[in-house]
Amino acid sequence: MPIYTAPTEDQLFVLDEVLRIGASEVPGYGDLDRDTLDAILGEAAKLAENVLAPLNPVGDEQGCTLENGVVRTPKGFKAAFDQVREGGWTALDCDPEYGGQGLPYVVATAVGEMFSSANMAFNMYQGLTHGAYNAIHAHGSDDQKAMYLPKMVSCEWGGTMNLTEPHCGTDLGLIRTKAVPAEDGSYKITGQKIWISAGEHDMVDNIIHLVLAKLPDAPDGVKGISLFIVPKFMVNEDGSLGDRNALSCGGLEKKMGIHGNATCVMNYDGATGFLVGEPHKGMRAMFTMMNEARLGVGLQGYAQGAVAYQNALAFAKDRVQGRAVTGAENPEGAADPIIVHPDVRRNLMDQKAFVEGARAFTLWGASLIDQAHRAQDTKAEGLISLLTPVIKGFLTDKGFETTVLAQQTLGGSGFTREWGLEQFVRDARITMIYEGTNGVQALDLVGRKLAQDGGKHVMGFFEMVKGYASENKGKDEAFDRDFLEPLKAASKDLQAAGMFFMQNGMKNPNEALAGSYDFMHLFGHVCLGLMWARMGLTAQEKLASGEGDAAFYRTKLATGRYYMARQLPMTATHLARIQSGAETVMALEAEAF
Amino acid sequence: MPIYTAPTEDQLFVLDEVLRIGASEVPGYGDLDRDTLDAILGEAAKLAENVLAPLNPVGDEQGCTLENGVVRTPKGFKAAFDQVREGGWTALDCDPEYGGQGLPYVVATAVGEMFSSANMAFNMYQGLTHGAYNAIHAHGSDDQKAMYLPKMVSCEWGGTMNLTEPHCGTDLGLIRTKAVPAEDGSYKITGQKIWISAGEHDMVDNIIHLVLAKLPDAPDGVKGISLFIVPKFMVNEDGSLGDRNALSCGGLEKKMGIHGNATCVMNYDGATGFLVGEPHKGMRAMFTMMNEARLGVGLQGYAQGAVAYQNALAFAKDRVQGRAVTGAENPEGAADPIIVHPDVRRNLMDQKAFVEGARAFTLWGASLIDQAHRAQDTKAEGLISLLTPVIKGFLTDKGFETTVLAQQTLGGSGFTREWGLEQFVRDARITMIYEGTNGVQALDLVGRKLAQDGGKHVMGFFEMVKGYASENKGKDEAFDRDFLEPLKAASKDLQAAGMFFMQNGMKNPNEALAGSYDFMHLFGHVCLGLMWARMGLTAQEKLASGEGDAAFYRTKLATGRYYMARQLPMTATHLARIQSGAETVMALEAEAF
Repeated sequence: MPIYTAPTEDQLFVLDEVLRIGASEVPGYGDLDRDTLDAILGEAAKLAENVLAPLNPVGDEQGCTLENGVVRTPKGFKAAFDQVREGGWTALDCDPEYGGQGLPYVVATAVGEMFSSANMAFNMYQGLTHGAYNAIHAHGSDDQKAMYLPKMVSCEWGGTMNLTEPHCGTDLGLIRTKAVPAEDGSYKITGQKIWISAGEHDMVDNIIHLVLAKLPDAPDGVKGISLFIVPKFMVNEDGSLGDRNALSCGGLEKKMGIHGNATCVMNYDGATGFLVGEPHKGMRAMFTMMNEARLGVGLQGYAQGAVAYQNALAFAKDRVQGRAVTGAENPEGAADPIIVHPDVRRNLMDQKAFVEGARAFTLWGASLIDQAHRAQDTKAEGLISLLTPVIKGFLTDKGFETTVLAQQTLGGSGFTREWGLEQFVRDARITMIYEGTNGVQALDLVGRKLAQDGGKHVMGFFEMVKGYASENKGKDEAFDRDFLEPLKAASKDLQAAGMFFMQNGMKNPNEALAGSYDFMHLFGHVCLGLMWARMGLTAQEKLASGEGDAAFYRTKLATGRYYMARQLPMTATHLARIQSGAETVMALEAEAF
Repeated sequence: MPIYTAPTEDQLFVLDEVLRIGASEVPGYGDLDRDTLDAILGEAAKLAENVLAPLNPVGDEQGCTLENGVVRTPKGFKAAFDQVREGGWTALDCDPEYGGQGLPYVVATAVGEMFSSANMAFNMYQGLTHGAYNAIHAHGSDDQKAMYLPKMVSCEWGGTMNLTEPHCGTDLGLIRTKAVPAEDGSYKITGQKIWISAGEHDMVDNIIHLVLAKLPDAPDGVKGISLFIVPKFMVNEDGSLGDRNALSCGGLEKKMGIHGNATCVMNYDGATGFLVGEPHKGMRAMFTMMNEARLGVGLQGYAQGAVAYQNALAFAKDRVQGRAVTGAENPEGAADPIIVHPDVRRNLMDQKAFVEGARAFTLWGASLIDQAHRAQDTKAEGLISLLTPVIKGFLTDKGFETTVLAQQTLGGSGFTREWGLEQFVRDARITMIYEGTNGVQALDLVGRKLAQDGGKHVMGFFEMVKGYASENKGKDEAFDRDFLEPLKAASKDLQAAGMFFMQNGMKNPNEALAGSYDFMHLFGHVCLGLMWARMGLTAQEKLASGEGDAAFYRTKLATGRYYMARQLPMTATHLARIQSGAETVMALEAEAF
């Protein structure tokens, strides 16, 4: 069975030493000194390691079953869900007015990594509920909030997001689900939704579905979509449960991974629904918390990479096979552990350098969200809006790739169910698809975010990187050479790519869009390069001061140097692909393929 | 259910127009005019499309079952196997002395792609038998050949390769299976072998296991390994089956993919075996046909990419979602087919350009094997020996990546079982692992093949590329710019990488080995670049002459230009990684990870 150890020390390093959140002015951050963080993360770690992780292969093996409209989750899920609920983990960053703990999002993000690494399919039940909570919290009426939120905060009730229909996913303007006004002010919802994660299951007393549908007078396209609350059981004034609503789970999707999560076909047959916010403004309402939701998926991607890496590392230290080319390192044994082989290390270092960089990037992103929401920092809001598609697209692509690398470390064992690596690969794969495919993220980045507010946010990003480099230049020659120079070169590539889009995308938008995917990856490398520079500098300062665990900081520096030397050069290839333009991409007529 | 159309036209283009095998001096090639090839490939295509492909999801869903020592293959497999056998497909390139058809290996390779794309798990039963046939054919005694080969050629009997044991795979020097001489000249084989593909199943009357084991007086390590024939049923002098041998299938591996193939734990409990070749020379015997076996796995890798691409393409033409940014292309419909979107095309072109380049590379490799074996061409032998790890490692990595890209084209549908893409991903994954992990391929390439015969073969490769470029330079400006210049630049990167290894690897072998994986990929890109240049030139010449299907050649040129513009720049990043050396790779002590 796979192992899992929560990365508490590494998260503390990022939160407390690199981002220094305890010293930040952001409301709520001041309470987060190292001991407080340590206490929270330590408790979450126990739950992740001892309760959630052991259920991960169980969930994969058993999957969910549908019988007579009832979805049963894998054995042990319900008891574990009770523990998560009772520990208050579902309420971590929720509004105290509705029973939440009111902690910053960055803390919930750190905990979210642990829970996702330990058991991604399981943690989605809570994650979806949280997404629905967010939408109602932002757009629901006071009555709606009072009625639904407390039980969603505690996860006594679940929540879902119903967007996709059989004929449309990305292009939601095509949806057909109808909402017909009833006399009492409610609506009758009719239609079929597919791929509804946690759409029906046995761990909660009620499920609050958020459903996109069209009113009879709706304009065409995305401007005619409204958002509705459609509860599984009607809720009485006193909060008790009433009649069963006219909706049902029509089937479970058989899928590559996340078997422990029920992916439902949901049928709404004149179900009673309640409008959230204004008519026809449903898309905006559903996507209000898009930055959070997409950051959460980026997190899932690298979190699978993180647990996969741990298992690859343990195997590489344990498995003996062959001898180090520079002389036996385990002469008493029949062979050396495979970690002695340069190519095994290359593989492990690629995994480690990505996972730790991604962790820092994600926590930084979460802190930007806190700055935006808690301190009304519009610059932070603009920046995270720009970075969100990068976090989602780059971290899930690379997170998946990391699970594949980790699986490779185990050789044949990696292909067997027994060792669990193949599950991480299968589970990680969905993160590149849902919450907007990574192609859609790239389109959002290049087609929308780059030019947003006159390109202010991307210019701000470049200035920030430049500022960081000039501020810290000259402190240490080796740091300049190993960290700052590669970062500057990568950032230059990113700027050149942006320039190419500006110069060519106006005349022909395909010139920009044909390079959008490479741009997203180029951007991702620059961000991880920045995070490694920041982590490297912190580690260097700590070493100089003699504070803390020197071995930890030396390892951090070495890992950062690896990323800069071995991963950042990839920006040149992305730039070359971008600069080759749209011609070769668009040359063929569709029939010529 | 996924679709499959055999790439007959594209294979004919490579075989007949690019490699011009019918005009070659290689014995047996003269008979392979276009009509003959077309007839063979056309028949194979029918079988692949109509019989094997429909069984692919069935095999995945049902898998194999073990009950009371009997392994049952999925429903329909046995009847299909009979059809393959009756069509003579198992005997294609086998020795006529034992009932084979004596066709060149390159023809079997083209057919192999179709069968592998259609149903990889199924085709492995035949593939493993062929591997065992090869070993006995090369090293068995005349009596052994007469006794076993005819029924293996016809696949009335199956064959297996038993190498791995629970504690060792890559490092076979550690094996523990024992062979004790009996009085009658046979041996008693005792030990456990794992991951034995097709180790036990119900489609053949007998299974001829080839087993690596150690004699009592064996030297330590790989120099003490002998090879044995261990039949499931003893074979009488007259060829009839005798007693059941003391061996059994102890379990089936649960694995990520290739569910239709039985991956067995094989227990040998004093089973009767017969020495093949000389004592202690088993490794050599087992690996005689290593180039063929590894090329066969490279083929499996891109073949999964090929069928995945077909399905991605069909989806992209059919699925309507969003509008082309340059104006509606399907104004009557609710939306445009997604193939209009630049990023969807980027994805499809990456798939297409890889698959077609890989097909040409593999068929060229197979023709080198024919040249080596049929025309005793030692230069071809040296070249294919050099290229084999590249074919295996690069084409399986990229083949897997292509299945992932294809899966992505389908968005959420790609994650569901129903569409079949996720099976291609799961099946392709094993090709990066078995027959020597891709890390081992990289080690073989850099640690062994580069320096083989004083580096003669790699120098020969560089000269060939250089010669090709100078021969064809100046014929056409656009061809020079689009094909020859990028090829030369990529080849220069490869030479620079080789130079780095020469200059630094002597002092410290880790300097070379830390870059081995990138070198394998760099080499692969140069090879595909060369194949695209050759295909592009052929297409250009055909267009100029007005012969054949102009649309086909124009598409070929456009696809080649894409590869050169968008894939070849990757060589620069691989070179940068290589030139960063071993320092960052080896910096950490194992405990520091």
